[in-house]
Amino acid sequence: MKRNEPVWLDLVSESAYKHVTMKLVQKRSKKTGLSPGTLIHIGEQRTHAVTMTLFKYAGSRCEEHVVTDASELQPPADETFTWVNVGGVHKVDLLEVLGKQFGLHPLLLEDIANTDQRPKLDDYESYFFLVMKMLMLSERGDIVVEQVSFVLGRNYVLSFQENGTDVFYSVRDRLRGGKGRLRQNGSDYLLYALVDAVVDQYFAVLEMLGERIESLQERVIADPKPDTLKDIHALKQQLLFVRRAVWPLREAINNLSRSECPLLHEPTKVFFRDVYDHVVQIVDTIETLREMVSESLDIYLSSINYRLNTVIRVLTVITTIFMPLTFIVGIYGMNFEYMPELKWPWGYPMAMGLMGVVAAVMLIGFRRKKWL
Amino acid sequence: MKRNEPVWLDLVSESAYKHVTMKLVQKRSKKTGLSPGTLIHIGEQRTHAVTMTLFKYAGSRCEEHVVTDASELQPPADETFTWVNVGGVHKVDLLEVLGKQFGLHPLLLEDIANTDQRPKLDDYESYFFLVMKMLMLSERGDIVVEQVSFVLGRNYVLSFQENGTDVFYSVRDRLRGGKGRLRQNGSDYLLYALVDAVVDQYFAVLEMLGERIESLQERVIADPKPDTLKDIHALKQQLLFVRRAVWPLREAINNLSRSECPLLHEPTKVFFRDVYDHVVQIVDTIETLREMVSESLDIYLSSINYRLNTVIRVLTVITTIFMPLTFIVGIYGMNFEYMPELKWPWGYPMAMGLMGVVAAVMLIGFRRKKWL
Amino acid sequence: MKRNEPVWLDLVSESAYKHVTMKLVQKRSKKTGLSPGTLIHIGEQRTHAVTMTLFKYAGSRCEEHVVTDASELQPPADETFTWVNVGGVHKVDLLEVLGKQFGLHPLLLEDIANTDQRPKLDDYESYFFLVMKMLMLSERGDIVVEQVSFVLGRNYVLSFQENGTDVFYSVRDRLRGGKGRLRQNGSDYLLYALVDAVVDQYFAVLEMLGERIESLQERVIADPKPDTLKDIHALKQQLLFVRRAVWPLREAINNLSRSECPLLHEPTKVFFRDVYDHVVQIVDTIETLREMVSESLDIYLSSINYRLNTVIRVLTVITTIFMPLTFIVGIYGMNFEYMPELKWPWGYPMAMGLMGVVAAVMLIGFRRKKWL
Amino acid sequence: MKRNEPVWLDLVSESAYKHVTMKLVQKRSKKTGLSPGTLIHIGEQRTHAVTMTLFKYAGSRCEEHVVTDASELQPPADETFTWVNVGGVHKVDLLEVLGKQFGLHPLLLEDIANTDQRPKLDDYESYFFLVMKMLMLSERGDIVVEQVSFVLGRNYVLSFQENGTDVFYSVRDRLRGGKGRLRQNGSDYLLYALVDAVVDQYFAVLEMLGERIESLQERVIADPKPDTLKDIHALKQQLLFVRRAVWPLREAINNLSRSECPLLHEPTKVFFRDVYDHVVQIVDTIETLREMVSESLDIYLSSINYRLNTVIRVLTVITTIFMPLTFIVGIYGMNFEYMPELKWPWGYPMAMGLMGVVAAVMLIGFRRKKWL
Amino acid sequence: MKRNEPVWLDLVSESAYKHVTMKLVQKRSKKTGLSPGTLIHIGEQRTHAVTMTLFKYAGSRCEEHVVTDASELQPPADETFTWVNVGGVHKVDLLEVLGKQFGLHPLLLEDIANTDQRPKLDDYESYFFLVMKMLMLSERGDIVVEQVSFVLGRNYVLSFQENGTDVFYSVRDRLRGGKGRLRQNGSDYLLYALVDAVVDQYFAVLEMLGERIESLQERVIADPKPDTLKDIHALKQQLLFVRRAVWPLREAINNLSRSECPLLHEPTKVFFRDVYDHVVQIVDTIETLREMVSESLDIYLSSINYRLNTVIRVLTVITTIFMPLTFIVGIYGMNFEYMPELKWPWGYPMAMGLMGVVAAVMLIGFRRKKWL
Repeated sequence: MKRNEPVWLDLVSESAYKHVTMKLVQKRSKKTGLSPGTLIHIGEQRTHAVTMTLFKYAGSRCEEHVVTDASELQPPADETFTWVNVGGVHKVDLLEVLGKQFGLHPLLLEDIANTDQRPKLDDYESYFFLVMKMLMLSERGDIVVEQVSFVLGRNYVLSFQENGTDVFYSVRDRLRGGKGRLRQNGSDYLLYALVDAVVDQYFAVLEMLGERIESLQERVIADPKPDTLKDIHALKQQLLFVRRAVWPLREAINNLSRSECPLLHEPTKVFFRDVYDHVVQIVDTIETLREMVSESLDIYLSSINYRLNTVIRVLTVITTIFMPLTFIVGIYGMNFEYMPELKWPWGYPMAMGLMGVVAAVMLIGFRRKKWL
Repeated sequence: MKRNEPVWLDLVSESAYKHVTMKLVQKRSKKTGLSPGTLIHIGEQRTHAVTMTLFKYAGSRCEEHVVTDASELQPPADETFTWVNVGGVHKVDLLEVLGKQFGLHPLLLEDIANTDQRPKLDDYESYFFLVMKMLMLSERGDIVVEQVSFVLGRNYVLSFQENGTDVFYSVRDRLRGGKGRLRQNGSDYLLYALVDAVVDQYFAVLEMLGERIESLQERVIADPKPDTLKDIHALKQQLLFVRRAVWPLREAINNLSRSECPLLHEPTKVFFRDVYDHVVQIVDTIETLREMVSESLDIYLSSINYRLNTVIRVLTVITTIFMPLTFIVGIYGMNFEYMPELKWPWGYPMAMGLMGVVAAVMLIGFRRKKWL
Repeated sequence: MKRNEPVWLDLVSESAYKHVTMKLVQKRSKKTGLSPGTLIHIGEQRTHAVTMTLFKYAGSRCEEHVVTDASELQPPADETFTWVNVGGVHKVDLLEVLGKQFGLHPLLLEDIANTDQRPKLDDYESYFFLVMKMLMLSERGDIVVEQVSFVLGRNYVLSFQENGTDVFYSVRDRLRGGKGRLRQNGSDYLLYALVDAVVDQYFAVLEMLGERIESLQERVIADPKPDTLKDIHALKQQLLFVRRAVWPLREAINNLSRSECPLLHEPTKVFFRDVYDHVVQIVDTIETLREMVSESLDIYLSSINYRLNTVIRVLTVITTIFMPLTFIVGIYGMNFEYMPELKWPWGYPMAMGLMGVVAAVMLIGFRRKKWL
Repeated sequence: MKRNEPVWLDLVSESAYKHVTMKLVQKRSKKTGLSPGTLIHIGEQRTHAVTMTLFKYAGSRCEEHVVTDASELQPPADETFTWVNVGGVHKVDLLEVLGKQFGLHPLLLEDIANTDQRPKLDDYESYFFLVMKMLMLSERGDIVVEQVSFVLGRNYVLSFQENGTDVFYSVRDRLRGGKGRLRQNGSDYLLYALVDAVVDQYFAVLEMLGERIESLQERVIADPKPDTLKDIHALKQQLLFVRRAVWPLREAINNLSRSECPLLHEPTKVFFRDVYDHVVQIVDTIETLREMVSESLDIYLSSINYRLNTVIRVLTVITTIFMPLTFIVGIYGMNFEYMPELKWPWGYPMAMGLMGVVAAVMLIGFRRKKWL
Repeated sequence: MKRNEPVWLDLVSESAYKHVTMKLVQKRSKKTGLSPGTLIHIGEQRTHAVTMTLFKYAGSRCEEHVVTDASELQPPADETFTWVNVGGVHKVDLLEVLGKQFGLHPLLLEDIANTDQRPKLDDYESYFFLVMKMLMLSERGDIVVEQVSFVLGRNYVLSFQENGTDVFYSVRDRLRGGKGRLRQNGSDYLLYALVDAVVDQYFAVLEMLGERIESLQERVIADPKPDTLKDIHALKQQLLFVRRAVWPLREAINNLSRSECPLLHEPTKVFFRDVYDHVVQIVDTIETLREMVSESLDIYLSSINYRLNTVIRVLTVITTIFMPLTFIVGIYGMNFEYMPELKWPWGYPMAMGLMGVVAAVMLIGFRRKKWL
């Protein structure tokens, strides 16, 4: 894997397990024993150059720059709004410069550099800090996970991604085009637009997972085998993972939509409440999908069990029919001198007939018991 | 399936799985990347003409119109009450016109056009917005699902359905007939009557599901087979689906019945509390039905397990009886020159007798162990 | 079943399933589409005559009447207390008359006539409305279920039962005898006495269920068979049913004991808190009984499983011993011309001895592995 | 069992089931239909004489009496503190006298006489009433259960036990010796000391259960058999029982430690908070022990399952090896006139060699598949 | 095990069970019956000498002493800050001296000496008391558990460990070096630094557990056997143990970060909120790891089940193919005089051909049914 590639969650492959486990517990260890506030990047190791783009807009105007020197950036002094998007959090010196320019708390910078955060909202009074997980679908259909952090100040928004690729293209287009509410509203509305863009992607991911569960449910009835079981568990793991990314977001967005802070205007809160509704629906859907996967597992186990039954029934039928027959032919294979049947001209056909009758009686009995 | 048919949830058929999955996750994807507030219809694609009916009433009077031009509609200026029922939400331009006439929030219109909503109550101060799922039984006995949205203003109610067919016939009859409380009370009572009509249908759906669970419970004991398992899982999915439709409604109706808003008069709240009681009872019943279905699954698995036991016991009995017999006949089939028994005149009957004794001992032993 | 018999919940019989299911979902359907407040009896169809008894008491006095004309009844104007007990709720016109005389809300009357209510407490300001389930044991030991509703006014109590038979005989005796606190206290204390009499019966029902679970637990270890499984599931269903009757009562009684309403005097609330403690204990006991039944199911399944094991072990032992022996006798049954052993005089005993050794080795091996 | 023996919970014996069930549901039935406040002893029938001991202390003084006439007792009028311990609650007339002397509510007396109470705290304003379960270990290692009730007045504590034997010896010693805080503090501190003595015994019981679970976990891996299963279920039942005794206590003690009532002094509440911490830890430990027992059940079932597997594998290996061999010897046992092999001098060794090769191939195949 | 060694939790070995059980329930018994406030050491018996180190710092200054006489210690009178670290809690007389010098409550000293505490925060107004579990990894990769208690006064911190080894080396280095915020801030920040150091170690432990779960998940698919099951249960037990150590900490740290007490300065609370976020993430991760282990158990059982299936299928195929063949060879082994086939020159090849056809038909049938 090249260094600056995003984290791929391969579906339906064993490596999925490893990835998730790694994500969960492996990253922080290099931090142990350091002074709090020491900036250290935790996460996938990356070496790509960090890109910074600046949008400066107000009503009719909108400028777009690529920034190379972070020390040029600062909160806008006039009544314009500023959006700085930082594509990479592995250069901690750059984060430190930005932190100084915008007066950010050291713990906040630490949280940005640590890509192993739980989604959360922190209220630092003069600014909000929001961490989310950005889920995207790669062209191969895998789930790509990236952490994205937002700082919402009075008239600026800072967004930090692990990588340059993101889901904000539509927000950029709307800013450039000037259509819609985006330019007319403040930085809180911009934050809403960004968060909404991230949450919208969750629906796409769930759609994909839903389709896979659907195809799984067909296979599980038609042809249950260990591979199906692996797929079930891979899907379970995926849903567990997505749930971890979305579940804590619910509370964060709820707090945002109910905040009394002057950074958020009343009309914007209605929109955050709408995002909140979406997140609730996503959580709801995840739970339903989880129940469906569990049910697939139940069906799988029942099918396996039923097949076992069928196999054992066949075994029993075969054994029960042939055991008496083999016994009978064994009798007439005995070497006693005085076995009158052996001398009879009709002995052989009679023995065959007897065995035919025994077999027929057995078969009829089995049919009555519905074993055949 | 023709375009303007409602969503059929076929019971006891595999397609049920698909439908639910689709409902859960497939609809929103075309919306990704659009500006919030952009009206897009999400749901079953429909092309039928949208019907609009208008009831205008106050005390003794009641007029009924079919409306063709939405721009004629507006909140009543006088002391009459207005109910506008819109049969179709797939024409977004029409929704926009209505939204303008009644001063509705863009997000509200978006929610109406998106038929994939979770039931909820939104308080927009000058009006309430309530989304519900309308469950109906088709003539074939399938569950038909339609989203219905209500806007409750000071003296009007707007209702939006996906389709023309609905469960409001009794409300219309009562409005036309003028009997009962309906015409004497305001728009809040009308909303109650409509919500009550929707909730009443839930009982009919649960009744049908209850009957099917009953018949299932009989079959599961009498004749457990994979088809029964499929039925169990189809019923589980159905109940999961109905629960998703009803569960969030509980909170919405509760909020409505406790709202301090002047749009709701005190005497009407008693009625909403009654609806709330019904919803609680429905939720309760769903949970009980779910427990019953789970229990059916348990019984199914136990029955299968018990049958397996029986089959294996038969196998063991047969094997255990015939193995020694076959061994004995094998002995006397050996070709040793010096086997005195073979020369005895009573050798053959003695061997047969020996085998009879062995078989009898075995049978008695099995009977003692209660294996036969 | 004759018309005016109560609902019998036959324990340990399949019909139990049906009854419960019917109770859950079948009753309301005839109501769909009717105007709210329309009085319709929902429940077991009954035709028996409705009996009404009136107790009028205060301190030392106590009169008892059988009432035939409901329109004679009314809230007492003087400082006496009145208890009207109505034995039957299927005559809706009678309910309407009573409702008019006592000024009862139409929804309350609807709830009385609908015997499919969830236990609940409604506060109508000038009176309380309490719905409960009365559980009784028939002589056959079955659980009899009846709905009982109470209206508590300033100085009257109305009680409505489905049938004439009830559990209030001790309350009547105490009223007639004049002993104890009953006559000295107001209508709230009377309500307490009635509720307490109903709740006391729950203990008797739980006692009976506890005994059956006890006998079940013995059978499940001694002789697990499908009938035991049916009993387990019947008991489960019974407990589910009793739980549905008691669970919501907890909150209702709690609200009653904490109500600030002047209808309830402070000293009486202590008694309601005592009833509340009983209900909590009953709920607790039901949960424990449920856990015991679940455990019985676990033991049942483990026992079945263990027996399967035993059976398969027998099968394996038999097969493993006789297969090699049969193979050996097969060898000496071959017809090769040059088989020196066949000619040996000691061939036959040697072959038999060889087989004895093989069998003995096998048996010792099995004993070592503890399979025998 | 003699009459005045405590309730023994025999561990690892079937009678444990019966006892618990009885405790849960059998006791109250004789009370049905009686007026509330009628004193009736509910519980194990006992006939032993009731012992009453009185401690009267204040600072440096401490008197100890055995009381025979309850009517001599009364709340102390001076600044001394009184502790009355009553050893037996089956003499209801004695309880009535005490109730009169100390001004106790009839319902409180009823609760004392009913030994089937859920642990709880009742606040009667001028006194507190606390019910607990006293768990002790008998010399045989069984759990002995006794109900103990406390009444805390301004300067007295009444304690009621079912029996004379208790866990308060250390409290008595400290009162007599005068060491520690006990004599210097008021009645609330005495209550604390008594409650603490009861709770300390819970640790001893958990210790014993923990050791048994430990020994169980060893047996369940080494030698799983139905007796182990019985032990698992007996332990489960025991833990369920202990949990029922402790769980409600948590809330009761918490309420006590947070009470605003003047009966409890601020410095004593710190001690009750300490007891609360202990109870929380006990609840926690019970939950962990329960998880361990559940896990033992899982291990038991897995072990049984694995053994079944092993047995069936042996069966299959034996069958698969000998079936083809038996078939081959069968071929050469056929009586066709024209079977050239039978005439070959090397036919017999060749057939034996062929069978050896077949068996070897089979064995190698099984070894490759790791079935051997 | 030598006396002063820490508690080793051996992973993947049976002794793990014992240890945890002991920790849970065995320690307190020697305390039963003692007066509360009597100092008794509960926990692993230790005899090593107790070490005490003192840090005295303020801004630029920092002194470090080894203390031998506890009675020299006392809360600093000037504006410096003091940290006393006590390495051993088994000398109760030393604890008593310290308690006297710093004015600590007897119950607090009792809690320090009892190493079987649940993590908790107690607010004694003039100081806070915090108990935590210190988890460390030994060189062998085992989890070492030690209890650590903190007392936070106005300008001092006392820390008590069971042993001399700890995780505070980085805090000491920062104090000595004078870099970072540590010397500039008060005792509350020092407490934060110590707590943070303990919590950081939890990540290391989870990392190790995560890696083991990963390797487990690979083995469980590749080669499920009873040893794997033991490992699963050992991991389960470990996670249960870690969860018990972390779960109650969440509430304690939350209370600390929200405390209104003047001992905690506003800027420090932000840091405690950060620790709180870490603890929440750890709890979250533990839950996910637990779900993964449960899933491993599911996969294990399914794999075992599937293998059973495969084995039985092989058995059935072998039996079903050879039973008819053995029957046919049996027929031609019969000794009837008149069996024409036996005389035919082509009888033998024909019989062989017939058997070949039967076997082929069977094989094709099995292949169609996908049993081969």
